[in-house]
Parts: sequence; structure tokens; C-alpha cells
Amino acid sequence: MGKEKNNFNLKTPKGTKDWSGSDALLRDRIFTTIADVFKRHGGTALDTPVFELREILAGKYGEDSKLIYDLQDQGGEICSLRYDLTVPFARWLAMNPDVRSMKRYHIAKVYRRDQPAVSKGRMREFYQCDFDVAGTFDPMVPDAEVLKIVTEVFEELGWQGRYSIKINHRKILDGVFEVCGVPAEKIRPISSAVDKLDKMPWADVRKEMVEEKGLDGAVADKIETYVVKKGTRDLLETLLKDESLLANASAKAGLEDMGLLMDYLEAFGVLDRISFDMSLARGLDYYTGVIYEVVTEGSAPAVSSSAPEAEKLQKSAKKSKSKGGNADDDRSDDPTLGVGSVAAGGRYDNLVGMFLPKAQIPCVGVSFGVDRIFSITKARLERENNAEALRSSEVDAFVMAFGGKGFNGMLTERMSVCQALWNAGVKAEFSYKVKPKLPQQFKAAEQGGVPFAVILGEDELANGKVRIKEMGLEEGHPEKEGVLVDLANLPAEVKTRVARKQDQASAVTQQLEGLNVNAPTN
Amino acid sequence: MGKEKNNFNLKTPKGTKDWSGSDALLRDRIFTTIADVFKRHGGTALDTPVFELREILAGKYGEDSKLIYDLQDQGGEICSLRYDLTVPFARWLAMNPDVRSMKRYHIAKVYRRDQPAVSKGRMREFYQCDFDVAGTFDPMVPDAEVLKIVTEVFEELGWQGRYSIKINHRKILDGVFEVCGVPAEKIRPISSAVDKLDKMPWADVRKEMVEEKGLDGAVADKIETYVVKKGTRDLLETLLKDESLLANASAKAGLEDMGLLMDYLEAFGVLDRISFDMSLARGLDYYTGVIYEVVTEGSAPAVSSSAPEAEKLQKSAKKSKSKGGNADDDRSDDPTLGVGSVAAGGRYDNLVGMFLPKAQIPCVGVSFGVDRIFSITKARLERENNAEALRSSEVDAFVMAFGGKGFNGMLTERMSVCQALWNAGVKAEFSYKVKPKLPQQFKAAEQGGVPFAVILGEDELANGKVRIKEMGLEEGHPEKEGVLVDLANLPAEVKTRVARKQDQASAVTQQLEGLNVNAPTN
Repeated sequence: MGKEKNNFNLKTPKGTKDWSGSDALLRDRIFTTIADVFKRHGGTALDTPVFELREILAGKYGEDSKLIYDLQDQGGEICSLRYDLTVPFARWLAMNPDVRSMKRYHIAKVYRRDQPAVSKGRMREFYQCDFDVAGTFDPMVPDAEVLKIVTEVFEELGWQGRYSIKINHRKILDGVFEVCGVPAEKIRPISSAVDKLDKMPWADVRKEMVEEKGLDGAVADKIETYVVKKGTRDLLETLLKDESLLANASAKAGLEDMGLLMDYLEAFGVLDRISFDMSLARGLDYYTGVIYEVVTEGSAPAVSSSAPEAEKLQKSAKKSKSKGGNADDDRSDDPTLGVGSVAAGGRYDNLVGMFLPKAQIPCVGVSFGVDRIFSITKARLERENNAEALRSSEVDAFVMAFGGKGFNGMLTERMSVCQALWNAGVKAEFSYKVKPKLPQQFKAAEQGGVPFAVILGEDELANGKVRIKEMGLEEGHPEKEGVLVDLANLPAEVKTRVARKQDQASAVTQQLEGLNVNAPTN
Repeated sequence: MGKEKNNFNLKTPKGTKDWSGSDALLRDRIFTTIADVFKRHGGTALDTPVFELREILAGKYGEDSKLIYDLQDQGGEICSLRYDLTVPFARWLAMNPDVRSMKRYHIAKVYRRDQPAVSKGRMREFYQCDFDVAGTFDPMVPDAEVLKIVTEVFEELGWQGRYSIKINHRKILDGVFEVCGVPAEKIRPISSAVDKLDKMPWADVRKEMVEEKGLDGAVADKIETYVVKKGTRDLLETLLKDESLLANASAKAGLEDMGLLMDYLEAFGVLDRISFDMSLARGLDYYTGVIYEVVTEGSAPAVSSSAPEAEKLQKSAKKSKSKGGNADDDRSDDPTLGVGSVAAGGRYDNLVGMFLPKAQIPCVGVSFGVDRIFSITKARLERENNAEALRSSEVDAFVMAFGGKGFNGMLTERMSVCQALWNAGVKAEFSYKVKPKLPQQFKAAEQGGVPFAVILGEDELANGKVRIKEMGLEEGHPEKEGVLVDLANLPAEVKTRVARKQDQASAVTQQLEGLNVNAPTN
């Protein structure tokens, strides 16, 4: 280390940011909530390198390949930063062909050299949280569990009644296009046009189909009669009466899958969270079966949806849209998620085979857009003034001391008390000054949002006693001046009070449907 | 996604690896153990981007700068992958000069384009776990807390009595060199030579000093009388009687610090874990005060150490060394850690000022070498046949069904029972087959190391009953065939049994001093 120039450009690279304080803590809690759900369903962690050989990523992302970050050729292998977590998972499965079934989760950063829009949350470095099931099983069973996982994640985040899961099936869509008379080579482009129904009205989508993509107007009109349909079992029953659809092998297979899926979602107790939405098409080409997307207040699409719940979401989205301007503002931070969604996924049975045909293994999975989930969660906690959930540290107790003239600061006594608390698992801090003033110590505890002060006084300590004082009690509260306890019992006394306070906070949080910090674990 | 060539080079880039199965889970538990200790001491998370502007990293790593991974110039800013977590922390502090005190932790990957030695755990992508305290405080108080944190981490990992913390002080060392007559410009090179005493005998170090670095032989001999000294308070008392040392301002300041540090470590109850080792010099130039390094069985240095505990470590290290060959084999996976250590750190008061002099803030911290900690922990768990700690999933219960002729597989019933377990926070799985055979289901549970089977039988279920069977009970055990419980009570019954089994496992683990999976949390 020599002497350095001091004219550094002190910033993070474009489209990246530091996470610190209460934001970092809240995001960590969201990760923990999501990972706990994944583990509850038998998910095991897979961690892959942040960069891959460039040839592994080549040809996987179509036009978006230009957004891949490349490492410089410094001699040796040519590498690029990962663009998503799905291709590395497929690469791993191809490298491990003896693994014939796996539930894997992966929470990690991905990289896209996109034009960043930091104010809208579109970053060049951002997190994805993925859960995928690989293996050959009976139809729709893992697919249903993945959707059950989606409901658990959002409900443990406190989003009950505030999100909606749209599902559809690629085989139904393809069958519909065939039945309506879309030529085979136009099925993917027409599917892409349908996918835009969540951000533009049918008239515009029809125009794109007919004028840009050269589809016969009558065929487009026939498509309309299908893709505007939404519902649950009622819609499925309607479609099962459509003889032209049933005569199409693809549509018939898709409808059978959808029937099974609904039975299984009912057994999982979550059928009411799902909306069968014929306009959902999903942008990525590699889906081969069921597809889904989760929308919520503030992220919902502006057009579409007829279920009562979805209608509420639609209104809220319209409001946010009228502020936003053009449709591109609704673009997700994560292009693979789709417009305005907070989670998305589906079945992709052919991706692993692209790496190694003999390692082919069917997969179904979901990706949570955690940056968007973070923003929405934080905004709600702020509206609710949920100070506990917005703290920047988790410290339970601040150990302080006071004394009269000639007071020595009791530093080693404070250290010794902290030691007892730490060894009992209590999160504790103390002032790093030899002789701190009492108001300074209280101020430090307040600034950290620490709920309890442990106060050492010379006379009390000589009698083996120490004071626990709950911070922020109002004047006149019987424990305003704290409670004297035996020093030997201090860790247990603090733990009891911390647990009691957390139970209260948790009750309030649940009432507010805020972030459920104390999600069930084993 | 078009059609792709299938002749991929199916591998991860050189010096990187995938983490999966029981390795990923064990490493995650180590991360959680370490992060819990950090949070218990008021640590808050800081997450920085994986790449920085290249100029931020420039000039920070001396010769090792050639090991920095650069991103390709694709237009826009010139960036490089981070080399450690300390420089990004210093960059953050310089960008946030209003933050005048902070305890931050960061667990993340760093990148070094070094010659990898995968079999020895030296990787190009590896994790660091850092805890640092920034701020101007009274001397040695945060320094002592950082060392207390080191003891808590290793003790919660189950390493009681198996690790040793060597400490020294840059000011004492510099004072010694001055007193011995080392010319000012040779102090850093001579310090580097001293740092090699843990991998070569004094005679070789002396040779380097005299022949390579041109030091007077008499000066080297005088240095020897100091750097072979080890101890605790006894050594400090010896040095405090050395009048030539006390006459040196640097040495005197360092000895005063060391006295305070020992008082504080005693108040924290961890003085007995520390060895004051005058030969510890640490490679990095930026340290300005106390420095430390943690060694353990299998990672200990081959030469030096006189405390009884350290002597044991020394023997174990010598054994591993005789197999290893040349000294370079002992090189850590992480060059900043130093040879053979599992954690290291110290005080660096001038680093932040390199970015922005007016943001200058003193810091002290520690970095844990988690890849090495992982390898040592895993080897011990394997020796101890600790199946619980080496499982690849955390699933508590496998829900299965059986029936006679015409049995329909009870798929939706199994789903419904899983739903009840998941909603109660129990980690549960079931077969994705419509009609799985009972032995297949037991085999799946066994392979996953799942401790409990929940068995649905048609007749029992009709009576509202379900069977819980603990896996792996020996023949003749009274509960070998399982216990019938009310379906309505199933989640509570499973949770009780899981908790009981974990308590037993935890007791065994503690007895074995294995990984303490159930570390204290709030």
C-alpha cells in the first residue's frame, strides 16, 4: 500500500447499489422467509459460481444475449457473469446426469447490462430467488406444490388477499391458436402479442397481430373469444364443452393437466388464490406446460382480470399507472418476470437437454422478484409506521452504567455483564467509552431502536442487583424507572422480556398484515 | 431459444465449483452460526456490488493487483470483481462520511485470478465472512470485542479447545525493530521476514534478513531474542521490565494497548484463549495496531508456539506437514488470512482516508476463512459419523400411504396432510407419484435422512387416525411399528417428536463437540 491519489470517483458502478441499515436487514428477513418456505418443502441449496464459461450462456437468451456481462480475456478461459439462475441450474443437471430428481433453491445475484432505471428498481445487479423441481413424475404433482409454495411465501410476507396468481398452460394456448387457424410458424409471434394484453387493450393487440404479424383478421377475432376468458373451475368446464378445442390434441392434453392441477390445488387448500387467465402467455420461449405470474397491488397489470380480487388489483394498478406515463414504466426490474409481476415461472421440460440430450430431465419452477417484493413490503411497513420491522439492527439490550462523583465508568463490569448476556444468546451492546455519560448511553440505545436498557449502578451492583428498563415507556408507567433483578438471573430476565415484547409486536404485525417476522420454522 | 450445438464444455470455470447437497447445507449452517454471532454483537449487514469501479481497487493490493479479475470494456465504466470485502467497506465509509460509527458484517464471495489448487481448497471464487467496527472510541475496547466474537464463533462451531488465537501489536513490533537497530526503510521488509517464522525456522528467516535484505547480523540476533517470545500476562510483564523497549515511544504505546486489551479480554472471560506471540507480523501493510490470527488442528503452523495448547496444535500441524511436502502446501485458500489460519484481522486506522482524507475513520476487524472452516468441520463430522449434521436436506416428515387391492394411492389425502404440516411450519415431503409403492416411499424417506414417516392407511384414516413412525428404530423397539394419533393433532404430534429428537441430537453433538446446529439465538 503506497500513497494513493485521492481523486477517486467515489461511487458504485452504474446500475448497482450498496445495501445497508434497515434496508439490508429487511431484505435479509425477506430472504429468510422465502428460504424457510423452500426448505419446508424439501428444497436443498445449490450455489453456482457468479460467472460461467461464456459458451454455457451462449444462445440461451435470444436478443437479450447482448445484455450479458463479459469478463475480460486475461488469458485462460472466456467467462461471463450469470444472467439468471435457471441456465446454471440446467448446466448443473446436465453435469450430474445421475441426479434423477431434485428440489433445488438458489437465492443469488444475477447481472444484466441493461439500461438501468434505479428509481424504478431496474438494476444491473439484482437478486433472484428460485425454486425448481427436476424429475420425471406423475403429471402436475410438483407443479401444484410449486404453486402452493408461491402462496406460502406471499402469505408469510403478510400479503394475504393482496396478491393474485394467474395461471395458464402453453398446450392450451397452442391448441387455441391451432383451432383458430394460426399458421404453425406464427404461433410464437402471436403468443407474444397475446402476452401484451396485460399492458394494452385488445384493439392494439389485434392491430399488432394483423398489421405487423400478417394474421388474418377473422383468425384474430376468433382468438379474442378465447383469450379474454378468466375464471377457475367454471372456465375449465366451459372449455371442456368446446368440441373444437377437445378435438385438438394439444388443447386436450393441456385441459386435462389443468383439471388435475385444480384438484391438487384444492387438496393443498389454495385453489381460491388462483385465476385461470387465458391471456397469460409469458415471454420466454422455453416453457412447455403450465405457466404462472403473480401480481399484487402496485404491480398489477392495467388491463384484464375479472375475478373480484383481481378487479381490486386492477383499480389500484390503474391508479399507479395514471401517474406513471407510458407502459414501459411498468416494466419489471427483472425481464424474466414479466410486466408488473412479483413472481413468475412455469414448466420447462426441454432446457437441460440443450446441454446434453442424454441428461434430459423435465423441470418446473418459480422465480421471486425480491427487489420488487422488498420495495412493496418496505412501502407498506412505512405506511404502517412499523418501527420494529424497519430497525437497522436487532439488538435486544444496551448495557450501561452510571455513578456519582469520581465514577470510573464501570467498563469491565459492563463488559462482564455483556459477556453473560451474549453467552446466553442475548443480542447486546455497550458503549466503547471508558466513562460514558448516562444520557449518551440512552441516546445510543434509542438511535438503535434497542428495546431494553440494562443499567448498572454502583450501589445496586454491590448488592448483586441490576436494573432492566424497557425503553420508551410513557410517564407514569409503573415500570418507567425499570425493575431491579438479581445479576445472576439477568440473562433469563432479559430473555423473558424480549420474548414477551416480540410476541406483542408479532400480534400487532399480524393484525396489520405486515411482514411476519416470526414465520413458523421448526 | 433456437437449436443449439450440444458440444458444450460442461464444467464450471477453473478455480470455481458448485456447492450442493450436504456440503451446501453444512456451509449454510456455518454461515448462519457466524452471522448469528455477528448480529448478537450489534453487527448490521452491508452488501456491496460484486464488482467495483477499477480505480477503487487500484493501488490497494500491491503486487497482488495482478490477480484482480477485470470485466471486459463493453462501453461505459471500467469495472473489476472485488478482491476482498475490506476495500469495498472502506469505499462505503468514505461515501458515507456522516456515519461516524458502525459495526458491519459482510458474508460474500471474493475473486482472485490466482493459480487454483482445488484439492487444497485454494479457489478463484471463495467466501469471506468479515466483521469490522469503524469509529473513534477509547483504546482497545472494540478490539477486545472483536476477539470475543472470534471465540464465540469457534465455540459455537464446536471447536472448544481446538483453536488458538495468536495476537501481537504492530507498534510493539515496530518498536522492537527500532530498538534492535533496524533502519527505518527496512522495517516493513524485516517485518515480512519475521512473519515467515510460522513456516520456516529462525535460521532461514535470519538468512533472509541478512543475505537478502542486507540486515546487520548482530541486529538480526537481537531481533531473535524478542520474536521467539510467547505467553500472556507473563510476557507482557517481562516486556514492561525491558527499559530499552519502554524508552521507545512506539513500543511503549503498543505495550499499554496490550495491557488494556488483556484486562478487557479477562472481563469478557476469554483471556485464556489468547496467546501473545511476538513472531506474528501479518503480511498486509495496512495494519496499524493489534493484529491476530487463529490457528487450529490441521491448519496450525509448523514452527513456533510454546503455550501447552499451542504445542498440541504444533504437533498436529507437523504431522500434516510431513505429508504435505514444501511450505507452499500450507498456504491458505485466502492469502489475506495468512498461512494455515482460519481467521485473521487487526486494526487498520488509515485505510478509509486513502479514499477521502476528510472521511478518515479508524477501523478494527476480523475475516473468517469459511472454506477452510468448512473443510475442517466436515472432516470432523465425518470422523464422528454425525449423520444428522451431514444430511442434504432438513425435512422432518415424509407423508406416505398404503392400501390393499384397488388402492388409489391417496394422493389428494397425502397432499392435504402435507398442507396441514406445512401450515404448522413442519418440513414435509411426499411422493410425486399417484400410486407409489410403500417400499419406494420408505426408500425415499431413508435416502433423504428424514427422521419421521407419517403413514396414511385407508381404514385408519376413515377413523380420523394417522400413524407416525420414527425411522431407523431397531427391531423390538416398542414404537417400531409407529404410533397412531388423531389426524387433527398430527402437526402438534410431529412437532413434539421432531423437537425431542433434535434435543437428543443436540446433546450428542455437544458431547462430541460437533457443530452446534442449535446455536443460541433470541
